[in-house]
Amino acid sequence: MAKKDVKKILVAYSGGLDTSVIVHWLKANYNNPEIIAMNADVGQDEDFDALEDKALKSGAAKLYVEDLREEFLTDFVWQALKANAKYDGNYLMGTAYARPLMSKRMVEIAHEEGCDAIAHGCTGKGNDQVRFELGIREFDPNITIIAPWREWDLKSREDEFQYAESHGIPLKFTREEGYSEDENLFHISHEGLDLEDPTNKPDYDNLLSVSVAPQKAPDTETKVSVSFEKGIPTAVDGEKLDPIPLMQKLNKIGGENAVGLLDIVENRLVGMKSRGVYETPGGEVLYHAHNKLEEMTIDRDTFHFKQHVAIKYGELVYNGLWYSPLRKSLQAFVDYTQENVTGTVEMELYKGNIIDVSVTSPYTLYSEELASFEEDDIYEQNDAEGFIKLFGLGQTTRVIAEQSWKEEK
Amino acid sequence: MAKKDVKKILVAYSGGLDTSVIVHWLKANYNNPEIIAMNADVGQDEDFDALEDKALKSGAAKLYVEDLREEFLTDFVWQALKANAKYDGNYLMGTAYARPLMSKRMVEIAHEEGCDAIAHGCTGKGNDQVRFELGIREFDPNITIIAPWREWDLKSREDEFQYAESHGIPLKFTREEGYSEDENLFHISHEGLDLEDPTNKPDYDNLLSVSVAPQKAPDTETKVSVSFEKGIPTAVDGEKLDPIPLMQKLNKIGGENAVGLLDIVENRLVGMKSRGVYETPGGEVLYHAHNKLEEMTIDRDTFHFKQHVAIKYGELVYNGLWYSPLRKSLQAFVDYTQENVTGTVEMELYKGNIIDVSVTSPYTLYSEELASFEEDDIYEQNDAEGFIKLFGLGQTTRVIAEQSWKEEK
Amino acid sequence: MAKKDVKKILVAYSGGLDTSVIVHWLKANYNNPEIIAMNADVGQDEDFDALEDKALKSGAAKLYVEDLREEFLTDFVWQALKANAKYDGNYLMGTAYARPLMSKRMVEIAHEEGCDAIAHGCTGKGNDQVRFELGIREFDPNITIIAPWREWDLKSREDEFQYAESHGIPLKFTREEGYSEDENLFHISHEGLDLEDPTNKPDYDNLLSVSVAPQKAPDTETKVSVSFEKGIPTAVDGEKLDPIPLMQKLNKIGGENAVGLLDIVENRLVGMKSRGVYETPGGEVLYHAHNKLEEMTIDRDTFHFKQHVAIKYGELVYNGLWYSPLRKSLQAFVDYTQENVTGTVEMELYKGNIIDVSVTSPYTLYSEELASFEEDDIYEQNDAEGFIKLFGLGQTTRVIAEQSWKEEK
Amino acid sequence: MAKKDVKKILVAYSGGLDTSVIVHWLKANYNNPEIIAMNADVGQDEDFDALEDKALKSGAAKLYVEDLREEFLTDFVWQALKANAKYDGNYLMGTAYARPLMSKRMVEIAHEEGCDAIAHGCTGKGNDQVRFELGIREFDPNITIIAPWREWDLKSREDEFQYAESHGIPLKFTREEGYSEDENLFHISHEGLDLEDPTNKPDYDNLLSVSVAPQKAPDTETKVSVSFEKGIPTAVDGEKLDPIPLMQKLNKIGGENAVGLLDIVENRLVGMKSRGVYETPGGEVLYHAHNKLEEMTIDRDTFHFKQHVAIKYGELVYNGLWYSPLRKSLQAFVDYTQENVTGTVEMELYKGNIIDVSVTSPYTLYSEELASFEEDDIYEQNDAEGFIKLFGLGQTTRVIAEQSWKEEK
Repeated sequence: MAKKDVKKILVAYSGGLDTSVIVHWLKANYNNPEIIAMNADVGQDEDFDALEDKALKSGAAKLYVEDLREEFLTDFVWQALKANAKYDGNYLMGTAYARPLMSKRMVEIAHEEGCDAIAHGCTGKGNDQVRFELGIREFDPNITIIAPWREWDLKSREDEFQYAESHGIPLKFTREEGYSEDENLFHISHEGLDLEDPTNKPDYDNLLSVSVAPQKAPDTETKVSVSFEKGIPTAVDGEKLDPIPLMQKLNKIGGENAVGLLDIVENRLVGMKSRGVYETPGGEVLYHAHNKLEEMTIDRDTFHFKQHVAIKYGELVYNGLWYSPLRKSLQAFVDYTQENVTGTVEMELYKGNIIDVSVTSPYTLYSEELASFEEDDIYEQNDAEGFIKLFGLGQTTRVIAEQSWKEEK
Repeated sequence: MAKKDVKKILVAYSGGLDTSVIVHWLKANYNNPEIIAMNADVGQDEDFDALEDKALKSGAAKLYVEDLREEFLTDFVWQALKANAKYDGNYLMGTAYARPLMSKRMVEIAHEEGCDAIAHGCTGKGNDQVRFELGIREFDPNITIIAPWREWDLKSREDEFQYAESHGIPLKFTREEGYSEDENLFHISHEGLDLEDPTNKPDYDNLLSVSVAPQKAPDTETKVSVSFEKGIPTAVDGEKLDPIPLMQKLNKIGGENAVGLLDIVENRLVGMKSRGVYETPGGEVLYHAHNKLEEMTIDRDTFHFKQHVAIKYGELVYNGLWYSPLRKSLQAFVDYTQENVTGTVEMELYKGNIIDVSVTSPYTLYSEELASFEEDDIYEQNDAEGFIKLFGLGQTTRVIAEQSWKEEK
Repeated sequence: MAKKDVKKILVAYSGGLDTSVIVHWLKANYNNPEIIAMNADVGQDEDFDALEDKALKSGAAKLYVEDLREEFLTDFVWQALKANAKYDGNYLMGTAYARPLMSKRMVEIAHEEGCDAIAHGCTGKGNDQVRFELGIREFDPNITIIAPWREWDLKSREDEFQYAESHGIPLKFTREEGYSEDENLFHISHEGLDLEDPTNKPDYDNLLSVSVAPQKAPDTETKVSVSFEKGIPTAVDGEKLDPIPLMQKLNKIGGENAVGLLDIVENRLVGMKSRGVYETPGGEVLYHAHNKLEEMTIDRDTFHFKQHVAIKYGELVYNGLWYSPLRKSLQAFVDYTQENVTGTVEMELYKGNIIDVSVTSPYTLYSEELASFEEDDIYEQNDAEGFIKLFGLGQTTRVIAEQSWKEEK
Repeated sequence: MAKKDVKKILVAYSGGLDTSVIVHWLKANYNNPEIIAMNADVGQDEDFDALEDKALKSGAAKLYVEDLREEFLTDFVWQALKANAKYDGNYLMGTAYARPLMSKRMVEIAHEEGCDAIAHGCTGKGNDQVRFELGIREFDPNITIIAPWREWDLKSREDEFQYAESHGIPLKFTREEGYSEDENLFHISHEGLDLEDPTNKPDYDNLLSVSVAPQKAPDTETKVSVSFEKGIPTAVDGEKLDPIPLMQKLNKIGGENAVGLLDIVENRLVGMKSRGVYETPGGEVLYHAHNKLEEMTIDRDTFHFKQHVAIKYGELVYNGLWYSPLRKSLQAFVDYTQENVTGTVEMELYKGNIIDVSVTSPYTLYSEELASFEEDDIYEQNDAEGFIKLFGLGQTTRVIAEQSWKEEK
């Protein structure tokens, strides 16, 4: 493929092997463009101080380190939490929230810096290339996007190492391949190596990063409560917390108690099934608590239809369509449903379990009087007879008709 | 309400306080009809030998004890398992499978015995009255249905005790009220008493019947594998088992390891929210394993649409519409999807957790070669560029259009 | 049924036979309560001046005539139009929009007048009783609701006539029974008599009220254009019109050209199928035009999901759940989608046909350049190859897998 | 793009300009492969006798003409009719049924002939390339697929003419460009030229092929009845007909009476909106009649859920996913629902209108007795009170709760 003529490239820079090689490769293969590196802090465990040195040594002219953590939570994770968004049934996602946000900031910086291209280090077989590129085009549909993994001849980590060595790029990585991982304040993902065979049980002791396996968790329960206002988490254990410390606190408690581990074969957008192991400790606690609160505060019909919306919402997010009109329209639906999702949920975390303790809300629709099998003021048991007869009238009509059809034969 | 003139009543007989009183009350209030009692064995813990004596002493002319356990599993639970049916998001149901089956058998016996009415002991505030009555009308839309709880003046357990004492009905029950419970091979439910206040944490030590709380489960994992053929469980730990022993074995292992506890505020069909605690130990293992197998053997689009079907299927079952044309039509969909859901899922059960060990299927759609980030034969990474551009073409068009609209303003 | 002790009843008063008898019957059977009559003007053809005299002669103490026409259109019909709400596939509804509005006003007047009950003249077999009663309870869940048709012994129009004669109620109606009809600014419905047999073709010449049959419509087309702003109709033929004259104008043009006739067997909420013939001339034009505009201004994914929302929205409205949280939440979704549904749709009406002439919108997503089969700037035809390969990757994987399964057998 | 080394190519041959040029171009650009042409007869208006001569003169070694008409109707159109499949709300499709069938036959012949590639003449901007290629890969995932329009330098009809002239390909076409059309037994589509501007009204006099505009249709109604067995059309006007003559007869009657015209801006799979005009005269009659019959024979819940299935089914077909497991699973659902969709629907066709005359079915669920507002045996009007109260209980609970929340504030 002929290389487009670009002069200044913004590179989504992680500091890992891929992006280190990419910076060099772009300069070598694209007529020596100026490279602006951008690293997004979405809560990953990273030595941000060392990054700049590394980026410059790789050949970048400049490194931006952008703290997107709060925006990541408030504008993305909290919104999806309200929707109860999951993908493929159980996957709470995480990376899919970070990509569109990073893309937005990348375009902003590209515009400020006058870059005529944006490059990312995603492979050509994954979801993230789609999420990045749709995210970028949302804010600049015309900017050139470069995905070196789809262009170059390097086919493996080993190829990258050889490239780095032969071009004198300083690397501090071990040659041994690790899992493919992506971390942010909401989750950390693990793919690759032995996980690619679904008959292999994950080696949790080596794999896990912010959590422990249930067997390694404490022998006593840890109490935790989360409070919500209109579906948004606002306090832990009664203490009002800003989004970042709130999430950090729940990640810590959840992770220590082995909550939020998922081992799944999922359906990638680009058409294949892949296997991942995910840690979402605080997220699992939040989803669980939010759902408990919705059980009490959302009426039946809305609760049921919202289940369908959650599925669609999850598909859109997973597929990189965060900025789509449909995701935003579904958000309008979701937000309306959250008007009364306010209250506090108490739980005990214990070796992977979230044990319910209590739910309280000023806007509960649960009525102890009604729920009781005893008499009450509103409900007359006799009404049930008429209800059942009309609820079943279509059936009765059908059965009687069926009998007459049989007789006619 | 004027009593209909009925001569012989089939009573759904559990042997509990309610039905003991009902037998007497029907005779006293309905011009002394003959009472045929029927007890359905759907796997509950019951001293069936003592039942007949009890029923006759209550005034019944005869007791049928019907072993419906295998039919309960194969014709109901297995069908719903294939659909991944749940209600209100997480409730695996159980009672809702037993009621339509019992209704069918009740009508059969009523016809054999020449009964002109069927009576059940459900209260007027619950779902079961609906399930029973729809189930009965499916097989006899004209038979008289009597629901004493909606007719008589008794309003509480105490009222029933006084009725029994004043009419000389022999009772061996303690006057102290227990939880309202329903048990079968698939689950046991607990409602009432302190559970009616959702700020009360369930007292699992007293409450649980076939399970233990996570804290009481063994300190070491229990391995278990389940094999499926076309979505139907056929073997545990490699041993082919008939439905009843298979379910019993999984209930035992699951229960011992605290798997399958659910504490939920659910939306009853008759309009109120109610709170229940459920034990579904074997069911939880089956649902988990079945889902793992579907992850590997069902394509993405079917997997996603099937999520919507599962929601609707769950609503229908919960609402007593088992015999509805829609449930059966959805079943035809579900059954078609299960063609390749064959294979074995290995798990470890540990203090409430189901830890995935391995999934194998002769019909897997997972391709390790494709999933790997390395090169393969089928997938050319370059294809992703075209894919992303056309997948995002609608977006690109919109964004460009939006820019032009802004410029015009 | 024992009559509740009520002192002052608000009666939904149409001036027809039913409500004339009801006023008298309520006074005679409910211990002579004071009767406040309310007639809602929702655009029906009615001699409102004569109503008061009639109401007072029937025994009412007072008649309110409430002009709800504009609220009916803006707060109900326009909202549903944006949603493209239909029931049972094709029914545009109409009555179902009027009932919740009338209920709201009825409760307001009942409160102003100090009424302790509200009565309506709906039969016990239709949908309107549900819509009225849910509407009333939304604004006063405790007020007594009286539905004489479910209480009294009158079983037919003839019974009512005899009641009126024997009680000296002055009637100007012919004894001959007409169709059961309901009219408002949006539609007029016809049920009953020969229509009850679905093998009878409607006698359109006698039946139709605001329309003609296609055969009776003019032999030349009538041009009409409708303009929308954010999904709301605002102008006809380029002339800005307030809701009432806009609707009246479209009803006139549509009706003259035989547009908007529907003959349907529908599924009533209370469980039976019923057959109705509907005239919705202006409504059909509005729905058609609105849909054309959406084709141009709403993206694919939103357009498709909105189809599902339209079905649910239609069910809720039909079932009397206008004020439900789910209808309102769906409205939030719908409203978001209408942001760009602005523009003008030109049509020709001709003997029942709506023939499309043109659609223009400042916010069109249609790009003539893209749609053309010729080359353009955005779309590279080569991209299609990659798109198709990845779009079909799941299939390719499956087919290859299926081949390998066969080989193994 | 480097040309793959292929020796024998099966070409989907229409006899039009595109495929005539393609045959030559393939030989010239692919190292002179042998060309096997295949023309599928799916009911288009074509001089099949002249085709062979034309194909051979263009350079093909052989021409297959395959009569796929009956399979097209029975295995595709009838199946979708049962599903009530539409795309984008109103489009009955047509081309999307032919493509997967043609693909299947193409692969069969390619295998018989030992071809190592299949070529088609679809452009790179349309849906048909996707439908063909997915169809081909379903039966041979490995065969090389060649899409000349995505490869060559010809960009317009004029380019093709010049290519033909300069290479001595005999053409009998007029140089003037016509609409892009696709015809089969179910529909004929028109795209391109002035239609590409959605403000242009179609020139129906010139455009229409099997229909007339409403204004040109007869001044008197044409009666027609269609009979169905399990959702499949089997007779017209009481005469049993095989699929082909049945479809031909309805196309003739429908087309003469201007039934089945559609002018739509649709959402192509490849991401842009496009505008098409479609004639589906017999199809419109069949869909209308089938729906009328379903109104009478399918219960409410199934009818409503089937609406959702129809949307999904339509998307799958439109997107070329006919052979997908999901389409087949949905078919299983649909087929189950059609068990009782048997009966006869009488209509009058008049200037674009389908006027309902009568519907009869041995399996009707419509009960005149129930539907009547008079008393009947099954329905007790009193039951409605209990029904409404419990149907509205969730609402009542919510309203009372809302009042208490207000009071607390």
